Amino acid sequence: MEQFTDIGFAKLDTARAGRTGMGESVYCPGKTPEQLKTIMEEFIHRGAAVLGTRCSEEQAGFLRMNNLPVKYDRVSRLLTAGTQEVNHHRGLVAVCTGGTADIPVAEEAAQTAEFFGATAVRHFDVGVAGIHRLFARIEDIRKADAVIAVAGMEGALAGVIAGLVECPVIAVPTSAGYGAAFGGVAPLLTMLNSCAEGVAVVNIDNGFGAGVMVCRMLHMAERTRNK
Amino acid sequence: MEQFTDIGFAKLDTARAGRTGMGESVYCPGKTPEQLKTIMEEFIHRGAAVLGTRCSEEQAGFLRMNNLPVKYDRVSRLLTAGTQEVNHHRGLVAVCTGGTADIPVAEEAAQTAEFFGATAVRHFDVGVAGIHRLFARIEDIRKADAVIAVAGMEGALAGVIAGLVECPVIAVPTSAGYGAAFGGVAPLLTMLNSCAEGVAVVNIDNGFGAGVMVCRMLHMAERTRNK
Amino acid sequence: MEQFTDIGFAKLDTARAGRTGMGESVYCPGKTPEQLKTIMEEFIHRGAAVLGTRCSEEQAGFLRMNNLPVKYDRVSRLLTAGTQEVNHHRGLVAVCTGGTADIPVAEEAAQTAEFFGATAVRHFDVGVAGIHRLFARIEDIRKADAVIAVAGMEGALAGVIAGLVECPVIAVPTSAGYGAAFGGVAPLLTMLNSCAEGVAVVNIDNGFGAGVMVCRMLHMAERTRNK
Amino acid sequence: MEQFTDIGFAKLDTARAGRTGMGESVYCPGKTPEQLKTIMEEFIHRGAAVLGTRCSEEQAGFLRMNNLPVKYDRVSRLLTAGTQEVNHHRGLVAVCTGGTADIPVAEEAAQTAEFFGATAVRHFDVGVAGIHRLFARIEDIRKADAVIAVAGMEGALAGVIAGLVECPVIAVPTSAGYGAAFGGVAPLLTMLNSCAEGVAVVNIDNGFGAGVMVCRMLHMAERTRNK
Amino acid sequence: MEQFTDIGFAKLDTARAGRTGMGESVYCPGKTPEQLKTIMEEFIHRGAAVLGTRCSEEQAGFLRMNNLPVKYDRVSRLLTAGTQEVNHHRGLVAVCTGGTADIPVAEEAAQTAEFFGATAVRHFDVGVAGIHRLFARIEDIRKADAVIAVAGMEGALAGVIAGLVECPVIAVPTSAGYGAAFGGVAPLLTMLNSCAEGVAVVNIDNGFGAGVMVCRMLHMAERTRNK
Amino acid sequence: MEQFTDIGFAKLDTARAGRTGMGESVYCPGKTPEQLKTIMEEFIHRGAAVLGTRCSEEQAGFLRMNNLPVKYDRVSRLLTAGTQEVNHHRGLVAVCTGGTADIPVAEEAAQTAEFFGATAVRHFDVGVAGIHRLFARIEDIRKADAVIAVAGMEGALAGVIAGLVECPVIAVPTSAGYGAAFGGVAPLLTMLNSCAEGVAVVNIDNGFGAGVMVCRMLHMAERTRNK
Amino acid sequence: MEQFTDIGFAKLDTARAGRTGMGESVYCPGKTPEQLKTIMEEFIHRGAAVLGTRCSEEQAGFLRMNNLPVKYDRVSRLLTAGTQEVNHHRGLVAVCTGGTADIPVAEEAAQTAEFFGATAVRHFDVGVAGIHRLFARIEDIRKADAVIAVAGMEGALAGVIAGLVECPVIAVPTSAGYGAAFGGVAPLLTMLNSCAEGVAVVNIDNGFGAGVMVCRMLHMAERTRNK
Amino acid sequence: MEQFTDIGFAKLDTARAGRTGMGESVYCPGKTPEQLKTIMEEFIHRGAAVLGTRCSEEQAGFLRMNNLPVKYDRVSRLLTAGTQEVNHHRGLVAVCTGGTADIPVAEEAAQTAEFFGATAVRHFDVGVAGIHRLFARIEDIRKADAVIAVAGMEGALAGVIAGLVECPVIAVPTSAGYGAAFGGVAPLLTMLNSCAEGVAVVNIDNGFGAGVMVCRMLHMAERTRNK
Repeated sequence: MEQFTDIGFAKLDTARAGRTGMGESVYCPGKTPEQLKTIMEEFIHRGAAVLGTRCSEEQAGFLRMNNLPVKYDRVSRLLTAGTQEVNHHRGLVAVCTGGTADIPVAEEAAQTAEFFGATAVRHFDVGVAGIHRLFARIEDIRKADAVIAVAGMEGALAGVIAGLVECPVIAVPTSAGYGAAFGGVAPLLTMLNSCAEGVAVVNIDNGFGAGVMVCRMLHMAERTRNK
Repeated sequence: MEQFTDIGFAKLDTARAGRTGMGESVYCPGKTPEQLKTIMEEFIHRGAAVLGTRCSEEQAGFLRMNNLPVKYDRVSRLLTAGTQEVNHHRGLVAVCTGGTADIPVAEEAAQTAEFFGATAVRHFDVGVAGIHRLFARIEDIRKADAVIAVAGMEGALAGVIAGLVECPVIAVPTSAGYGAAFGGVAPLLTMLNSCAEGVAVVNIDNGFGAGVMVCRMLHMAERTRNK
Repeated sequence: MEQFTDIGFAKLDTARAGRTGMGESVYCPGKTPEQLKTIMEEFIHRGAAVLGTRCSEEQAGFLRMNNLPVKYDRVSRLLTAGTQEVNHHRGLVAVCTGGTADIPVAEEAAQTAEFFGATAVRHFDVGVAGIHRLFARIEDIRKADAVIAVAGMEGALAGVIAGLVECPVIAVPTSAGYGAAFGGVAPLLTMLNSCAEGVAVVNIDNGFGAGVMVCRMLHMAERTRNK
Repeated sequence: MEQFTDIGFAKLDTARAGRTGMGESVYCPGKTPEQLKTIMEEFIHRGAAVLGTRCSEEQAGFLRMNNLPVKYDRVSRLLTAGTQEVNHHRGLVAVCTGGTADIPVAEEAAQTAEFFGATAVRHFDVGVAGIHRLFARIEDIRKADAVIAVAGMEGALAGVIAGLVECPVIAVPTSAGYGAAFGGVAPLLTMLNSCAEGVAVVNIDNGFGAGVMVCRMLHMAERTRNK
Repeated sequence: MEQFTDIGFAKLDTARAGRTGMGESVYCPGKTPEQLKTIMEEFIHRGAAVLGTRCSEEQAGFLRMNNLPVKYDRVSRLLTAGTQEVNHHRGLVAVCTGGTADIPVAEEAAQTAEFFGATAVRHFDVGVAGIHRLFARIEDIRKADAVIAVAGMEGALAGVIAGLVECPVIAVPTSAGYGAAFGGVAPLLTMLNSCAEGVAVVNIDNGFGAGVMVCRMLHMAERTRNK
Repeated sequence: MEQFTDIGFAKLDTARAGRTGMGESVYCPGKTPEQLKTIMEEFIHRGAAVLGTRCSEEQAGFLRMNNLPVKYDRVSRLLTAGTQEVNHHRGLVAVCTGGTADIPVAEEAAQTAEFFGATAVRHFDVGVAGIHRLFARIEDIRKADAVIAVAGMEGALAGVIAGLVECPVIAVPTSAGYGAAFGGVAPLLTMLNSCAEGVAVVNIDNGFGAGVMVCRMLHMAERTRNK
Repeated sequence: MEQFTDIGFAKLDTARAGRTGMGESVYCPGKTPEQLKTIMEEFIHRGAAVLGTRCSEEQAGFLRMNNLPVKYDRVSRLLTAGTQEVNHHRGLVAVCTGGTADIPVAEEAAQTAEFFGATAVRHFDVGVAGIHRLFARIEDIRKADAVIAVAGMEGALAGVIAGLVECPVIAVPTSAGYGAAFGGVAPLLTMLNSCAEGVAVVNIDNGFGAGVMVCRMLHMAERTRNK
Repeated sequence: MEQFTDIGFAKLDTARAGRTGMGESVYCPGKTPEQLKTIMEEFIHRGAAVLGTRCSEEQAGFLRMNNLPVKYDRVSRLLTAGTQEVNHHRGLVAVCTGGTADIPVAEEAAQTAEFFGATAVRHFDVGVAGIHRLFARIEDIRKADAVIAVAGMEGALAGVIAGLVECPVIAVPTSAGYGAAFGGVAPLLTMLNSCAEGVAVVNIDNGFGAGVMVCRMLHMAERTRNK
């Protein structure tokens, strides 16, 4: 059986769903609008739902100008075509941010999780500088099956939440901040050094990665449920 | 109700199990042997199972010299007292290493997971330099509910595995290596930049953190099973 | 009037008290035991109280072997001779630590503040991983005129406290931790990027600097009181 | 009693003044003009004075186009609405810069301090390359209750001043400079390693943070005065 | 005999072919269009084939506007004039990329190798996240005399290939990626720390250097063949 | 006697010539065109020759639009008004570059040295990749009283020259290069680690600093001559 | 057919010779003496020649105490058992060092190349600070089929040689040096940024990797010879 | 004429005095005691004065045990044999340190300068934290032909002095300090970014390099005097 589709400049990993349990996704930067169009057409032609990440407005505009049936979200920069058929995870993900500037990354995480079948609840601007805002939400957050904590600057949110909940916490450092935030290095280090247990970290601004990670967890939970 | 026990130089978080679903653990470095003894006695006195991490031989020797009922594993440097009562996760964790030098960190991860109730299967020295060694094991690894990928030097193991399995992968960079490995920075960056989805990363050499993280996932899976 | 005492390898800044309002201090590393002895003798001879920082046990032992009237504290590595005559600040400093491994730095801060006339109250091991421990103490901490927040690893303590108190917070990152803590760089960056206002930072492990800083603040407050 | 106002994408910390003694402030970057408008309207509606930092000309223009009663200062990029009622600190802050290029950050510091009730005196372009310029001003600087030392490039100003005054010095590294200044890293390190006592540091270009910090000190002095 | 041509702002190394066995090349950045024109004219005048690297569209446009007989490839940004006379290497180079975003660098490598006489076969988008794509090609890759492995982000491709082939592998890290990829530092470190033997690394995005390096190898092989 | 002129946002160090033997200079970045105009007018009014560094075309244009008698060199970005009266150094400076892209920095160095009275001879594009180009010039270079070696990328030029000449070598790393050149860090480190003796280094791209440094040397030589 | 031998803590890649054309090697650090003994016995038992790298004196002593037929070289820290049967490369490698302190790494490179069948000629202490030493040897170096250039501190040797020879140059940065050499980072960057073409770089102090790399090249040359 | 002496592991650059005007020196680290002995014997045999740098006590002891006529200074770790015959520079060098911990590096600088014929005057412990100590000495310092400014921690000394003297200033950052001093990186950056003109920098702790550099300047001055 064919494992991938070779279109020259790219090898579409069309067997990924079978191998990793998750559908297709495309990393858009560094692709010309034409290349992206060719890739998306191939997926659409196969009837596969597909998620494009970090899609620029220019790329999205080119696709729409060429009448591809895609949706584009400006905040998260996510491009989608088709719908995942089965909402099989039925899990609940709490997506929290330290501030308002972290929202684009958080939306990338939340919408990615939703694309792959999870339910996402947003708790934005609950950073530790005014920790009562977090406590006002903590009971809701504790109901989630997984938390995605998105924060720039000092990035302390993930560790504080991890000390307050039972479920796993995926931490996403963001490049929000200035000076010694060093484009996300500061929150990245904070999150890696979290004193609280139960935190694991993805790349700076990688909301997509966080969204997929929690879906893998929920997927695993579902499989064990069905054993 | 009392939330922690104050012994002056430390506040023992005796309510952690209720709050985060995981039992007690103690970070041993920076504590004098006497301080560690006081802490362990308090936990033992309360009948709580407790896990000490990064315990030096000198610290462990002092505790045994003082007849505390503790166990010490030289490879993982884990110190344990008591046993977690309920092996409630019933989950299966595959702990993989790139090389032999990564084993101490991998054992810390595996034994931590076991301490908190999971079953750990070890796949050591399956690094990508001889990738057929990984393929010889991949079917077994695919059976796990979660993978812990432990690797130093280039650290590519986590990403390669993540592209081959359905379950979540927790990546642990190690300080094994020299020169431009920069004490674990190289594999840390590799893992954070993994092209494969479904990877999240803990601190360099933090086998304990990986072990707890997968247990939180398995715990969550168990809770959803019981809903 | 003479501004300093020249003893060749060092120029003792004996006019510092007049110029900056604080007494003498000596940075001990890099000085031979003999050099340190000559310096301390000069201060003792002049009847000045003096504080030596980061003094090694070997240096302290040499001084005592030579019968100098000095005191040495092993935890903080502070060396003292004489007593500041006037306890003129009458201010209250809360010295908080994230964990037990931060205590040596915290003691350096607390004892420095005490040497220069402040009253220090210690709140150790109140890190954000178990934030209820901090909340149990927060009312006491809020009574202080200044807070010194000492933390390694993620270093989030300073920012969380700053969001909860009115007084200025001096943050001291420590080198406690491993891996991506990079010898204190991680908490240093966290503290510099604190989202909460009212935090300023001193060098990694610089408890002495934090102690002096809060005394300058209390001293200023005293002066304004007397205007 | 209500602790904050939830407007979805942000949780306005309207209880901050009661908790930390300082009024409201808003970090403008990463907010859309519309989001910023909503936030400012909420504060204005409540009659609260509020300070917006790092506001872009585009953001400020949008607010004025929508007839919000705000003031905008192009040099400091500060946005203000309303006036703090009580000028309760009565303290004097000396704001010094190494060069002319540091003025925007210094103005952010000075105007922030003024917004929160302090009196700021400016001493610009007194860097150590021509140290007689500093000495010509030092008597005036010594009269202040606190010094804010703003410098890029080598950043030596803070340490030199701290050796000449009694009051606390808040150091602000700036990104002025090129090459091995690394966007402010050089002066940041210089300031953290200051040999003089009585210096604490805020983030690169964080004039706002320095302004708030000195106000916290002055506020504390005022409280102790009234005891 | 003349060793180079001095045109004031540049000394054209016209004896390079004799000394190092490879023809001329010109690094275009930092040269004004006029300077580049003068240099190219000199080479063209001498009848030498020459390769310009990192040529901007503006530079290339200026040359064409001035009717210089040059070719320009937008993807690789290579500028060429003339043809190397002897295709003397007769070697086969496999140029592989991790993803589509690495293609410009890969094309620089492949076309450089071709310019200097080698035959290049492209295998694009065979990164380790979907390792079956690499295995589908590995037999072809194994036929090459040298491999150029081009990858950004995690950069694991080079090490995995090196473990599967007999020939030398030149690794080219690219700046494709974001966040903790740090502009190519992450794949650079990965490649330098490759556990597999037989990998050597060139600068980030330096496809040209990789192309020359493999040609030197092939050239050497040819010379030993003729001994 | 007046030591400097206070124009508010700047303190013009008009006594510098008397104190350091060198005339005035102005660092232009971070100054508004208006501020720069005020500063230049003050110097021109006093009849002092002055050198402005890193002047943008916009700044220079504003000055000329306002009819200030200044000269502007686009390559070096130097702005000058007036002429140093005495060409008192009579020294010879060899300004060498590794490549053509280093010329702007080299011109800044050469023209600065010329402004302060030295004679500069340029040897451009003599980098070590074709070391015979350097050897063709070395006899001329050896006649100089001081060498300024300007190089980006690997930056090896300074050390190689220092091993071949008797006079002092001032090394200027440049930001020419890409990838792991890290904006000049690579040549900076190379130059600092030069195995050859007789090299000292200035900031990345700091041609001005190198020019002044050699003039200080020549000035010193002149003074000793006149003793 | 069996692809590797599984001894639990290690998977011996006994098929490597077939797959990559090179024999076995073992990275010794991080292995207990007992583990190393088990591994070496397995290879010896199979009659395979094997090379151990970075072997400590303690490890080597343990093996000899247990009568394993191994050889140990203290300078290169290489451990060998058996002999490669076929000296099939017949290639000539010039191993050059900048200084005497680079010799251990150079010997690791030279002896590795010799182990795998090449002939190594040593040219030590020919660094660029006294470049006539290099020129005295350059004719000999030009006769080699490949050059390994080993240098610490500034690391300029590789680039200078590459500009003078036709064959490929493998550059090995070493940790020899101090201060801003940063443990080999300075020569690593120098080598990566080499202006001369025909240089590729291995990890800091990785003499072994350089030795293998040149053997792969020679091996490839041999294969093409036999086509 | 012979250009160097080849003793296998080293090529003694015996023509250096003729080429660069300075005598011989040997970098001792990384040499076995036996190698160092062979080198020194060769120089002594030739009647050349020679300077060994960073010589360990063990190395020096071995030489003396073997009756070589060498002198060793423990503070500067300099090893000398013979005496430079001509004290031809007759220049005056002021060697200043920020603190006592910088003295070893300063002595290396001063004694190197003295070895090569200059007169060195020491001004130790005149750091900017108590700047009156520097002013008490500044008239003496201004009499020097060159200044060597040695400082760790913040490293501001060099820039402050450069603003006060006419002669060139060579800055030596030292590794004295802790935390964010990063082994000398902080003072290195401070010195490279010095706002004052007339500063050039050598490697961290490189007192030797500074000593040679000023001698090259004095030597040049002497040559120009004799023209």
